[in-house]
Amino acid sequence: MTTQPSRNLETFPNPRPDREYEISFDCPEFTCVCPRTGQPDFATLRIRYAPAALCVELKSLKLYLWSFREVGAFHEAVTNEILEALTKALAPRWLVVVGDFYVRGGIHTVVTTTHGTPPERAIASARTPNLN
Amino acid sequence: MTTQPSRNLETFPNPRPDREYEISFDCPEFTCVCPRTGQPDFATLRIRYAPAALCVELKSLKLYLWSFREVGAFHEAVTNEILEALTKALAPRWLVVVGDFYVRGGIHTVVTTTHGTPPERAIASARTPNLN
Amino acid sequence: MTTQPSRNLETFPNPRPDREYEISFDCPEFTCVCPRTGQPDFATLRIRYAPAALCVELKSLKLYLWSFREVGAFHEAVTNEILEALTKALAPRWLVVVGDFYVRGGIHTVVTTTHGTPPERAIASARTPNLN
Amino acid sequence: MTTQPSRNLETFPNPRPDREYEISFDCPEFTCVCPRTGQPDFATLRIRYAPAALCVELKSLKLYLWSFREVGAFHEAVTNEILEALTKALAPRWLVVVGDFYVRGGIHTVVTTTHGTPPERAIASARTPNLN
Amino acid sequence: MTTQPSRNLETFPNPRPDREYEISFDCPEFTCVCPRTGQPDFATLRIRYAPAALCVELKSLKLYLWSFREVGAFHEAVTNEILEALTKALAPRWLVVVGDFYVRGGIHTVVTTTHGTPPERAIASARTPNLN
Amino acid sequence: MTTQPSRNLETFPNPRPDREYEISFDCPEFTCVCPRTGQPDFATLRIRYAPAALCVELKSLKLYLWSFREVGAFHEAVTNEILEALTKALAPRWLVVVGDFYVRGGIHTVVTTTHGTPPERAIASARTPNLN
Amino acid sequence: MTTQPSRNLETFPNPRPDREYEISFDCPEFTCVCPRTGQPDFATLRIRYAPAALCVELKSLKLYLWSFREVGAFHEAVTNEILEALTKALAPRWLVVVGDFYVRGGIHTVVTTTHGTPPERAIASARTPNLN
Amino acid sequence: MTTQPSRNLETFPNPRPDREYEISFDCPEFTCVCPRTGQPDFATLRIRYAPAALCVELKSLKLYLWSFREVGAFHEAVTNEILEALTKALAPRWLVVVGDFYVRGGIHTVVTTTHGTPPERAIASARTPNLN
Amino acid sequence: MTTQPSRNLETFPNPRPDREYEISFDCPEFTCVCPRTGQPDFATLRIRYAPAALCVELKSLKLYLWSFREVGAFHEAVTNEILEALTKALAPRWLVVVGDFYVRGGIHTVVTTTHGTPPERAIASARTPNLN
Amino acid sequence: MTTQPSRNLETFPNPRPDREYEISFDCPEFTCVCPRTGQPDFATLRIRYAPAALCVELKSLKLYLWSFREVGAFHEAVTNEILEALTKALAPRWLVVVGDFYVRGGIHTVVTTTHGTPPERAIASARTPNLN
Repeated sequence: MTTQPSRNLETFPNPRPDREYEISFDCPEFTCVCPRTGQPDFATLRIRYAPAALCVELKSLKLYLWSFREVGAFHEAVTNEILEALTKALAPRWLVVVGDFYVRGGIHTVVTTTHGTPPERAIASARTPNLN
Repeated sequence: MTTQPSRNLETFPNPRPDREYEISFDCPEFTCVCPRTGQPDFATLRIRYAPAALCVELKSLKLYLWSFREVGAFHEAVTNEILEALTKALAPRWLVVVGDFYVRGGIHTVVTTTHGTPPERAIASARTPNLN
Repeated sequence: MTTQPSRNLETFPNPRPDREYEISFDCPEFTCVCPRTGQPDFATLRIRYAPAALCVELKSLKLYLWSFREVGAFHEAVTNEILEALTKALAPRWLVVVGDFYVRGGIHTVVTTTHGTPPERAIASARTPNLN
Repeated sequence: MTTQPSRNLETFPNPRPDREYEISFDCPEFTCVCPRTGQPDFATLRIRYAPAALCVELKSLKLYLWSFREVGAFHEAVTNEILEALTKALAPRWLVVVGDFYVRGGIHTVVTTTHGTPPERAIASARTPNLN
Repeated sequence: MTTQPSRNLETFPNPRPDREYEISFDCPEFTCVCPRTGQPDFATLRIRYAPAALCVELKSLKLYLWSFREVGAFHEAVTNEILEALTKALAPRWLVVVGDFYVRGGIHTVVTTTHGTPPERAIASARTPNLN
Repeated sequence: MTTQPSRNLETFPNPRPDREYEISFDCPEFTCVCPRTGQPDFATLRIRYAPAALCVELKSLKLYLWSFREVGAFHEAVTNEILEALTKALAPRWLVVVGDFYVRGGIHTVVTTTHGTPPERAIASARTPNLN
Repeated sequence: MTTQPSRNLETFPNPRPDREYEISFDCPEFTCVCPRTGQPDFATLRIRYAPAALCVELKSLKLYLWSFREVGAFHEAVTNEILEALTKALAPRWLVVVGDFYVRGGIHTVVTTTHGTPPERAIASARTPNLN
Repeated sequence: MTTQPSRNLETFPNPRPDREYEISFDCPEFTCVCPRTGQPDFATLRIRYAPAALCVELKSLKLYLWSFREVGAFHEAVTNEILEALTKALAPRWLVVVGDFYVRGGIHTVVTTTHGTPPERAIASARTPNLN
Repeated sequence: MTTQPSRNLETFPNPRPDREYEISFDCPEFTCVCPRTGQPDFATLRIRYAPAALCVELKSLKLYLWSFREVGAFHEAVTNEILEALTKALAPRWLVVVGDFYVRGGIHTVVTTTHGTPPERAIASARTPNLN
Repeated sequence: MTTQPSRNLETFPNPRPDREYEISFDCPEFTCVCPRTGQPDFATLRIRYAPAALCVELKSLKLYLWSFREVGAFHEAVTNEILEALTKALAPRWLVVVGDFYVRGGIHTVVTTTHGTPPERAIASARTPNLN
């Protein structure tokens, strides 16, 4: 596998495709660029999903998040874009993506977006620092 | 854009108008004036909403909150007024505004008000310091 | 307004009587007397309610809680008595009163009582120290 | 009242038998003996209930918990036995008893048992250290 | 009983087979081996279940978890495998198994899997460090 | 021993008068009256001392703190008064008294006063909530 | 006493001028204006001092901090200015003033300045949120 | 080795007798009996020491603490007695014993006693819950 | 002032050059590149210093930290390099720089380096998340 | 570099050999075997050192800690052994190694050992979970 940033999300077969269960990733190492000012933005990405036929490979997810490092991206748009890319790659039963951005202008912004019908608990945990 | 306090809430088109998702703002830098005593009051404002056609611009929100700095405002009324201004500007699917005021008379007051039908989790998170 | 302890709960008109919203008070400065031993008891009172036509005035609430300072009161009874007084004064849509008493006999006692049908989140927040 | 350990749970009439409300006890001072090894076991007991006609007297509850000090008791059985004794003495609307035992074999065990239909929030609070 | 690692999960009769109640285990001492690199992986296992006819013996559970020490296991697969072994041994009313793995590649992974229909609160507590 | 509030601090002989060691009391149940407004004040008292010939009896300390319940007392003066009473009763090697008062006017006040030369660690622990 | 913002720090005689002891104030309600942009700044002020002949009156301190509300002030300068005003008004044995400012440009700034020779513990406590 | 409570503290040779280093034990499972009332008392014992020729065996320490289960013991005396027993058995370079007792009469008592000259950090850590 | 990343640290005259006081910056938005793998690294930078004639301008510090975004840098070297650049630009009385890096290989690395003789408290606070 | 467990600690030249600075590692993934029972033990290792001519390579440190996975080791001995190996490989100015072991027999054991004369703050931070 490459160790370059990549928009290609690699997958592997879900070892238990018949059971609905949840996989959770907390990714505190996300950075992109503000499209208006060109200055860096930082966020923690928190992802929860229930795999169907496919799971996302962990290293591939890391490289995918890395691929935003030089990209101009608004908070609302980039969080939804990551949701859509994971939805396309995995066709999961459900998916939650939270972008928890660092303070700008004295305001702390968090964007929460979903695919399918996640259980409330999965959304709540994704919006909460220090919970899984 | 001006950098003066302003009651004008600027908006931009929601990049994903077809999907219901949540935007959360924590704003610890709110101050107004007690209408009875003229002394300053302080609060943290916590806002959660699901955009429909429009999103509120972050800097504009900051200037809007600034506009209360010299204004006399009761806790219950000002929290509802902010809810109504955001509702009018954004016509969101739903909206939560929490005013979490500093201790007065040994009592800690928090006002929670909503537009539409927010999910319980959104209201709970808005009422909870240190959660998103 | 007097600054003497008083059982008279003063009110003011709800500025938004048409909207169901929540007002929350955390009052860590409550003390009464144990009816059996005559020794002081201490508690934090946590109140949440949805106003209908009337809101309780903050200073009046403080004086009301002060009025229990010399009164003999069992934990279960006094928490319900405060609920009933607020219910009578405000006729709220719903009301939660929690009496969170200091340890006695190595046991920490909390009494939770409600009027109407509060949302579960309001009851949960009232029973939780450090949440609003 | 005696100050000896006692299996007799004393009660007093519920001051508000017509209203469903909750009484919560956190009791960190519970110890019994492991039936297999004879060595001491320790736990925090957390109890929540909605009284019907009767409330349990606080000191009597303390003496009751003391009565297990020399008794051999498995985690699962003793938690249920306490539930049953309180159910018999109080005939409550509902009851939750949690036994939160100290680490044994590197594993932290918690037993949660209920009578009637407690609200979810009551069970959750009983299973959570530092919540009421 | 042996003190060797063992895949054999020993059980004992549930002392209260007629009542649905919950047993919770937090096991921070789990280690296996990454099948790809051969390097050690570490996790906290959190288990909640409602026993039917049988309970799992605590020491046997410890030896069972020990048995993975030299085994190559992917995060998603091993969490489900433990769920299946416990399901087979206990035939519980419901069961939750959470594998909360240490950071790899800057990402914190948690896998949550269930048998039967656990209450939401049981799943939430299993996914939350420092709750029972 | 009486169970009335009393300014009489009872003592017992230090069981180890030859060794310098520390006794620490955290007393969250202190209330007095503001001399200016007549309204109640509340504080947590935290006491650390190294006994010489005498130790203070715990119940007597409780009754002593109770004796301030109806007394008008400024924050700075009452904390020093308690230091002086304990110094007079115990003649300790050293003593720290901290009065940690509830918020007034949006400001949290803590008064720290000492007799003799306490170790820095004892003063620091007395000024810190949730440390011993 | 006036209830207008005032640069006049009122004092009262130290009730124990012969003893070196510490008075601590935590003031989370401080706001001024950025001299460069004209936009509001917010801070928590934390003050510790050992009074000599004089103590600062609490309400006067509140009005003094209020007096900065419309004033342009750099972080480093305003913290030192407050130190100097308190030094001039009180001539204390020692004094610590900390200005703990809200995030600007993704950076959290804290300014710590002293008069005389405060004990290390006093400086450390002033720089630490949630300690006294 | 026996598995009965025992006042006999077993030791083993310090594997590094030439180096001064620290061994720390946190023992939350201590109970004895109040000599005045006969009722159970509970405490966390925290021990730090620098071994000289001998170390205390962990299981023996557990049995030693168990031996106080039926013994009447005042807080101040029992903490010093444990210090003396460990000093006699180990002749350590230095030793700290802290008895952190559960709330009685609304007051939380902690006794800290030392042998030799422990570093301040060791005493501080022993007096602080959740530090090692 | 530019809004491009820059190695040029701009300064302004210290408003109180005669007093030794401390300025503290917490900068959670630092990223550079691993010189061995080319993959991104992330850290929180924590800086404390006592200005002499010059203070560092906040926005300039932000742009300086930004300038490492594309640079290959080992943990130990980059932390010292930042110390040296600040020392050269400011000639401070003393300076502490801490690089608190995200987990790699299951290990959390923190580098602490100083110029001059900072007080111990300044170093301790810089090494401690959530303290100033 | 190999990816097998190895007792060989690889080093690289300290980039700033002339400056005394500190490198800190928190390693929560340590496991060895109890020499008496053959059962697994777990610990968090926390290491702080001031490099002289050499620094330890991070991956090599990971492989070194891995090398204890099948080794029988007493708590006191293994912590000192790791100190000695690092001292031999690095000849550091000073070094702290803390072994923070999981609960056994209801007791939490932590071993702290040093080479040279570390500053007190470095030892304190190594003994404290969640500090660096």
